[in-house]
Amino acid sequence: MKIAIAQLNPLIGDLIGNAQKILENAKKSAAADVRLLLTPELSLCGYPPRDLLLNPSFIQAMDQILQKLAQDLPPNLAVLVGTVTKNKEAVIIGGKSLFNSIAWLENGKIQQYFHKRLLPTYDVFDENRYFEPGLQANYFQLDGINIGVTICEDLWNDEEFWGKRNYAVNPIADLSILGVDLIINLSASPYTVGKQQLREAMLKHSAAHFKQPIIYTNQVGGNDDLIFDGRSFAINNQGEITARAQGFQPDFIVVEFDPENRDLQLNVISPHYESDDEEVWQALVLGVKDYLNKCHFSQVVIGLSGGIDSALVAAIATTALGKDNVLGILMPSPYSSEHSLSDALKLVENLGIKSQILPIGELMQSFDHTLSELFIETQFGVAEENIQSRIRGTLLMGISNKFGHLLLSTGNKSEMAVGYCTLYGDMNGGLAVIADVPKTRVYSLCNWLNSHSQTEIIPENILTKAPSAELKPGQVDQDSLPAYDILDDILERLINKHQSVAEIVKSGHDQETVNKVFKLVSVAEFKRRQAPPGLKITDRAFGTGWRMPIAAMTGKQ
Amino acid sequence: MKIAIAQLNPLIGDLIGNAQKILENAKKSAAADVRLLLTPELSLCGYPPRDLLLNPSFIQAMDQILQKLAQDLPPNLAVLVGTVTKNKEAVIIGGKSLFNSIAWLENGKIQQYFHKRLLPTYDVFDENRYFEPGLQANYFQLDGINIGVTICEDLWNDEEFWGKRNYAVNPIADLSILGVDLIINLSASPYTVGKQQLREAMLKHSAAHFKQPIIYTNQVGGNDDLIFDGRSFAINNQGEITARAQGFQPDFIVVEFDPENRDLQLNVISPHYESDDEEVWQALVLGVKDYLNKCHFSQVVIGLSGGIDSALVAAIATTALGKDNVLGILMPSPYSSEHSLSDALKLVENLGIKSQILPIGELMQSFDHTLSELFIETQFGVAEENIQSRIRGTLLMGISNKFGHLLLSTGNKSEMAVGYCTLYGDMNGGLAVIADVPKTRVYSLCNWLNSHSQTEIIPENILTKAPSAELKPGQVDQDSLPAYDILDDILERLINKHQSVAEIVKSGHDQETVNKVFKLVSVAEFKRRQAPPGLKITDRAFGTGWRMPIAAMTGKQ
Repeated sequence: MKIAIAQLNPLIGDLIGNAQKILENAKKSAAADVRLLLTPELSLCGYPPRDLLLNPSFIQAMDQILQKLAQDLPPNLAVLVGTVTKNKEAVIIGGKSLFNSIAWLENGKIQQYFHKRLLPTYDVFDENRYFEPGLQANYFQLDGINIGVTICEDLWNDEEFWGKRNYAVNPIADLSILGVDLIINLSASPYTVGKQQLREAMLKHSAAHFKQPIIYTNQVGGNDDLIFDGRSFAINNQGEITARAQGFQPDFIVVEFDPENRDLQLNVISPHYESDDEEVWQALVLGVKDYLNKCHFSQVVIGLSGGIDSALVAAIATTALGKDNVLGILMPSPYSSEHSLSDALKLVENLGIKSQILPIGELMQSFDHTLSELFIETQFGVAEENIQSRIRGTLLMGISNKFGHLLLSTGNKSEMAVGYCTLYGDMNGGLAVIADVPKTRVYSLCNWLNSHSQTEIIPENILTKAPSAELKPGQVDQDSLPAYDILDDILERLINKHQSVAEIVKSGHDQETVNKVFKLVSVAEFKRRQAPPGLKITDRAFGTGWRMPIAAMTGKQ
Repeated sequence: MKIAIAQLNPLIGDLIGNAQKILENAKKSAAADVRLLLTPELSLCGYPPRDLLLNPSFIQAMDQILQKLAQDLPPNLAVLVGTVTKNKEAVIIGGKSLFNSIAWLENGKIQQYFHKRLLPTYDVFDENRYFEPGLQANYFQLDGINIGVTICEDLWNDEEFWGKRNYAVNPIADLSILGVDLIINLSASPYTVGKQQLREAMLKHSAAHFKQPIIYTNQVGGNDDLIFDGRSFAINNQGEITARAQGFQPDFIVVEFDPENRDLQLNVISPHYESDDEEVWQALVLGVKDYLNKCHFSQVVIGLSGGIDSALVAAIATTALGKDNVLGILMPSPYSSEHSLSDALKLVENLGIKSQILPIGELMQSFDHTLSELFIETQFGVAEENIQSRIRGTLLMGISNKFGHLLLSTGNKSEMAVGYCTLYGDMNGGLAVIADVPKTRVYSLCNWLNSHSQTEIIPENILTKAPSAELKPGQVDQDSLPAYDILDDILERLINKHQSVAEIVKSGHDQETVNKVFKLVSVAEFKRRQAPPGLKITDRAFGTGWRMPIAAMTGKQ
């Protein structure tokens, strides 16, 4: 039996457009003699639909469009579509009013619904806000083959693999007891570094343990901060990968289930990426491309400081959108070093993008003049430094507003963590491209990029000079911050591993440095609250999955 | 038996400080011959602690400080403290690793823990992110009286009152079957307009229905966007209010439970507010005061445009912080009308605050000059309008940075909804004071304020002139927006009632106007994502409880 995986890139909320994509893949499936077509979790509305789910008219529209889709499908093809359904008993027995469901469409109608059982409520996930968990093990029969149906998180409770139980029930164990022949999983699993290795290791373990072949269908595409990497795959009952779709792009692959030996046959296996850097690069390029597309922008404007962060963002944008769609703005001040302009110009040349130079000296003087009476007898300090950054931010937004270019902000995760950035200045932008990329990875990405390009992309001097905000003469980042390799290790422990000061000091870091970093991270909370959406590539990004109070004692006192 | 309610205002995360407050109230209780002291939900860490709960060292510290507090308490006093406890079985049977609990402290130690059973996961609440629901009905015996223990949401499932069930279990029904004498509830219930009437109506119904006296203890204070209004109260088993603490300030009241007739006796009942406007005013004053205090600021800076929004914010800030702590900045442009300056100066005079005039004409020219080559042959438009707003935003932040004043932003909810505001311009600020106040309520609040002050506060001309952003000559808001009473009704239906275009049109609004408003609200999502925290006063505020995708089809196409 031929089973197709449609690795789709939906537009959130675009029910008609998403249904059309499913229909196109259904036609392709029919032409390829496919019996069953799989689509990702919530493929009809896209994941995550978030508070759109609170609008009753949206739920009603999903139902109508699903019915219509069922009628339009080709014959002899079963299609599993991710949708939401009403929990009609909620008003009587309590519980949330919706289920996160899969609809089995065949013969012109909806044959059956299956409800997601394990609802994630950690990191960026809020499924309990909308959904009631399903209580039954889900399966159906197709041509004599019993197919177990699971949705994303349903397979993430392998006790033996994790060394602990995450949820009370384990859907795959239930299905195994029921004796299904094959387990399919419809997912919308966001990308993080190393996530695919984790998914495959976990499902290999489950497949071998329960002796169940598994087909895992993932969503692809960027949706605000989240990047879905696709890389859908299939595993036979020995726990071996038999198929893998491509990463970071829509794909359509057909796998073969052999009804005789009740297992999946070997198929096309797209290779893994050669390095984390390559993978992160692909993720960020897709994240930028989709945010622009889905927000109806085609061009971007970026402030180019001559530093490594804006260089990387410009390189990502150029790959995502094409060099004609990237405008770099150089805004030197009297404090800018000579190399900052020449390095930025070299970058512009290497990328082949458009650029403009707008010196900000006159504007700095006008601000000084306007504020002179009020600032009399005060010293040059953070206020003046920030004004430079905000002049640049205002110029960039002026260009964005005038020409309809989206402004990309260029701050990295290390800066965002310790607040080494100016709110309403260099933080300005519609999308923060590398907000979840620690500074040390900014370097490794740039080095990877240069070593995998025929000509130099990031100018050598940008890679080797000391990082500096250049907001006062002779300033370098390391005047006020620990070295980035030390800072990034402390931040990784603090943010991703939830370690305390004591634990981090115990790991070998200097007490005073750790105290300082904790305080900086805490004090910068108000800045991060107003940051643009940042593309998530780690287990814990600032943004949706980082929910910290501001007016609180969180380490700053 | 004397029972005291400590209506506390905690600092989130300040375990030692919060424990100290509990101890002080315990000493006061002992002096007043109180047998049982009640404190709000999570009184040890403050509500909501949010992702602080993900740090194991934070949980450990709570446990240690709770043990210490138990030892420090006066004798013959039982104290109920809101805390979190570990769900030790989670790794074996699954589930979240914490409970939202109450600890009964007495005789120098923790006597017993009770776990919250109903966990809210709607609007601003994410309790399922951290907590596992408790499975048992909670009660304990004190001097022969059986006391049922509930935490906040536990009492919000009165099926008869709501006309539907929200959760599968109903803790008060369970306690009633067990035959307790009194039900206490420790809450952290955020303020919204009319919320207290709802709480009292619901609990009166429950008390009468189950013939159970209820003591309801609420938190007070502003925590970022949330304002907790206090107004703790007691109800006898006839469903009559027997005591009510004050609103919007810490309070300590003692109620008397009569062991003979097993009911609460009549006590001091603080009156309700005379109007919603008075209540909202109190809420916003507290919200500003606490945000400043808890973030260690004492002074604010506000841009005064001569319009009604900044006038209201300045009046709130003056009441919250005192006139010497409010600095108003007037930033006229060549497009400013004469009255904008004179009205703002009149406001400054009425409030007695400090002010400074910083004309922005020179800066506008400098920006024009800097951008002249790039903007050649383009028309004056949104880009130039926004630059004016961003010049003002940059000046205000310069002053904020220079003198350590917190910048308050002044946009109202109607503007925030339709995007009639400039990102990195007038949206700048640490706190958006009236971001959840619709424009029509801005007017009613100002009128209420004037009619309840001995002298005029908001200058008459500000109340009567047509609202205008004054970013181009002769501009008024109603050039591009529907009249505010119409806009606010459409927005209320769209935002708070989740109505569709069709439903709103059916209610009597013009189709084209409704379409336009839906589109504006959708397009402005990217602005709201970067807005400062806004004080919540309605059922659905932008911010924590509004989770919308940006790169999506949500009505904008």
